[in-house]
Amino acid sequence: MNSVTPKMLVNIYLLIFISFRTLAQDPLPSWNDGPVKKSIIDFVVAVSTPGNIDFVPEADRIATFDNDGTLWTEKPLIQGLFAVYRVHRMVQHNPSLRDKQPYKAVMESDRDYFEKAGMQGVMKLFDVTHAGMTSTEFEQEVKEFFRTVQHPTLHTSLYNVTYKPQIELLKYLRAHGFKTFICSGGTEDFMRVVTDSLYGIPPEQVIGSEMKMRYIDSAGINDMMRLPGMKTLNDKQEKPINIRYHIGKRPILACGNEGGAGDIYMLRYCQGNTYRNLQLLINHDDADREFKYEEKDNTSLNMAKQFKWQVVSIKQDWKYIFPQ
Amino acid sequence: MNSVTPKMLVNIYLLIFISFRTLAQDPLPSWNDGPVKKSIIDFVVAVSTPGNIDFVPEADRIATFDNDGTLWTEKPLIQGLFAVYRVHRMVQHNPSLRDKQPYKAVMESDRDYFEKAGMQGVMKLFDVTHAGMTSTEFEQEVKEFFRTVQHPTLHTSLYNVTYKPQIELLKYLRAHGFKTFICSGGTEDFMRVVTDSLYGIPPEQVIGSEMKMRYIDSAGINDMMRLPGMKTLNDKQEKPINIRYHIGKRPILACGNEGGAGDIYMLRYCQGNTYRNLQLLINHDDADREFKYEEKDNTSLNMAKQFKWQVVSIKQDWKYIFPQ
Repeated sequence: MNSVTPKMLVNIYLLIFISFRTLAQDPLPSWNDGPVKKSIIDFVVAVSTPGNIDFVPEADRIATFDNDGTLWTEKPLIQGLFAVYRVHRMVQHNPSLRDKQPYKAVMESDRDYFEKAGMQGVMKLFDVTHAGMTSTEFEQEVKEFFRTVQHPTLHTSLYNVTYKPQIELLKYLRAHGFKTFICSGGTEDFMRVVTDSLYGIPPEQVIGSEMKMRYIDSAGINDMMRLPGMKTLNDKQEKPINIRYHIGKRPILACGNEGGAGDIYMLRYCQGNTYRNLQLLINHDDADREFKYEEKDNTSLNMAKQFKWQVVSIKQDWKYIFPQ
Repeated sequence: MNSVTPKMLVNIYLLIFISFRTLAQDPLPSWNDGPVKKSIIDFVVAVSTPGNIDFVPEADRIATFDNDGTLWTEKPLIQGLFAVYRVHRMVQHNPSLRDKQPYKAVMESDRDYFEKAGMQGVMKLFDVTHAGMTSTEFEQEVKEFFRTVQHPTLHTSLYNVTYKPQIELLKYLRAHGFKTFICSGGTEDFMRVVTDSLYGIPPEQVIGSEMKMRYIDSAGINDMMRLPGMKTLNDKQEKPINIRYHIGKRPILACGNEGGAGDIYMLRYCQGNTYRNLQLLINHDDADREFKYEEKDNTSLNMAKQFKWQVVSIKQDWKYIFPQ
């Protein structure tokens, strides 16, 4: 038997190297193999490969993602936690607020109050916790909230309640020339404090709800004053409208979740693109590892069936859910 | 005398090459040397050089530019030309409109009508020419307008009425890691058709005024319907507010023009940045090569003096104005 020649060594090395590369090339390791993962990869390869019949110029590779229930957990809504946190802080500074609504209801965990008050009660809570201060002051409050508050049931930092498979998907899209946007019901000044570190999405690519604002340039203040009242509630039909205002293009990929039927029009708007396009709808069907919830009338899942959207089953399609 | 050696040739070549490189390195060849050009280059070098005391992380190198009178000529307003163009097209399709206002006033160049009708008359003209169709239809109209209409006094394509020094400035900023945005009074769907080819600014980096919209997903239509009424008139205090909504960061460089005092708050907002920042105000003082006009009360130039903004004199600071 001959001894090992340098050429043989090189061949062995190449073989190992290639196998390793192939293994390392799974761009979505937290996604289980299956039709959903395949549909994503097929789509991304097709639209980003020059010469492919479905090739899309890089400038038009726009992807929009809902946030709550799509990129991080929404049970409970993180921004709802923030409102509660703000009420506690405000009562601490001014104990007389404890006897006034909506502070009282929050301090006493009075669900009845909010159920009776409905949307108006929620808006009032938003007004007192999200307005009446400058943008700069609000950002400081949000930073402090994320620094100190933990998720009430998952008992971990709020930086750990994002979905690992989705962060891989965002990176995979950007590696193929996509520009990734958030289009969510959360308010912009709230989300923007953390979207870059959580998802690699800069503030200017975050579309959300927002309070009215007034610009003040006097008496030493040069800032936005956050006012009571919503300028836009970025949900349902408002999502495509705000995408139009903000981006001026239709996405070729849109991803939302079932739960509140908030994303159906964003997905439909995406589907009206003349380029090849893909719609993903996250289905919260994993009570063991995350949460299980559905819409009473099943609107989102019914539309997914009617319009051939890809339904992502957390139970079946996600190998891991959270970063840890 | 010795003959020319190869080494001498190399040295001569290097000398020529270096001189040529030095010449080629003027990043703003259409700007005359002087304090304004120097202030721009000093600023850009400082904020983009790691280790410099004024260094700004790339993500925060945001620049916002007004469009009308700042990036292209505003005498007359190009979007005003478009409104007139639309009226002519509409009357062509439906001659009975000729007897109705505001069509009649446009067809008869009746300045009195618009002077009497004031802002309300202008808004009515906007409503009939900019609404009542889908975004897709509107875009087609704008494309056709730019393809066919010439500037009335400069007698050239509307692609040739941009300011060459400003296009150099935009490129220079991007080459130093800036993200360049337009923040102008023009409507977004109008500007976005041409900003990429004119300025290298993609639709998602264009902030403007805009009509109200409704999303329609029925009867075979999946599009935005443009409605009468402005959602936002992006002028004066609305500019910083829309920058906040759209970008979520303060610019470190803002550039506007005197003429209508529309940019003063955008420049003030920029000036409130905690990073080193620069404000540029274009002064239309060149009747021979462009236009000469000023504000009655001189607000913009007075504020420039008070707050130490750089005033760009078209006459003195710009070697060339238009691309040709």
